[in-house]
Amino acid sequence: LFALGRQLTIEYYDCAPGALLDPVEIETAFLKAADESHATVITSSFHKFEPQGVSGVVIIAESHFTVHAWPEHNYAAVDIFTCGDSIDIKRAVDSLTLSLGSAHVVVSSDRNRGLIPYGPRKKTV
Amino acid sequence: LFALGRQLTIEYYDCAPGALLDPVEIETAFLKAADESHATVITSSFHKFEPQGVSGVVIIAESHFTVHAWPEHNYAAVDIFTCGDSIDIKRAVDSLTLSLGSAHVVVSSDRNRGLIPYGPRKKTV
Repeated sequence: LFALGRQLTIEYYDCAPGALLDPVEIETAFLKAADESHATVITSSFHKFEPQGVSGVVIIAESHFTVHAWPEHNYAAVDIFTCGDSIDIKRAVDSLTLSLGSAHVVVSSDRNRGLIPYGPRKKTV
Repeated sequence: LFALGRQLTIEYYDCAPGALLDPVEIETAFLKAADESHATVITSSFHKFEPQGVSGVVIIAESHFTVHAWPEHNYAAVDIFTCGDSIDIKRAVDSLTLSLGSAHVVVSSDRNRGLIPYGPRKKTV
């Protein structure tokens, strides 16, 4: 079997006080992580909820980064979904750890997505 | 422990031929699924890749729907991330099954996100 995609879910606990309040700052952190991991950014969209909370997505050519942040718990739920082998996922995770000032990072899952019975390139005959 | 969020990953295999080609059609399907599941749509963004492939996200007040579609494999990788209890997740999954014409749907994971040691409401003292 060949996996079309790979998805990590990452829990950023104990983020720096204030690090999850401003959607512009969080978007900047995610665009930096995408860039550092060699992703190609297609578009991004970040939204602030009242009284607090931020949701955001960066669509990359290789799939996506998403985040949902609960400032009141200093916690952010992050997904990194990639296809292909060009993304340096560890670098993205570490970049976000630094930007969010998280003292407790848990990669809660790392899974294949889209199992197909053959690879993406057809064999020559 | 209390979970701030819940995330399902769903594999839509054997989608109807052509169902994964048009980003506008796919966006319509996702907005319909969000609506039917009682989600509050904040914004959506769908992107078509060349020669084929669609990525999209619907940010909802309760978190997100994302999709990455591989038309050449009639396969779509979907995430439904929710917080709170107001979303009818089964209805969203079923709505997408119908819209995408998928003959083989696998809920590949159903997990809690953001475990905190207490509930969102403070106890009265």
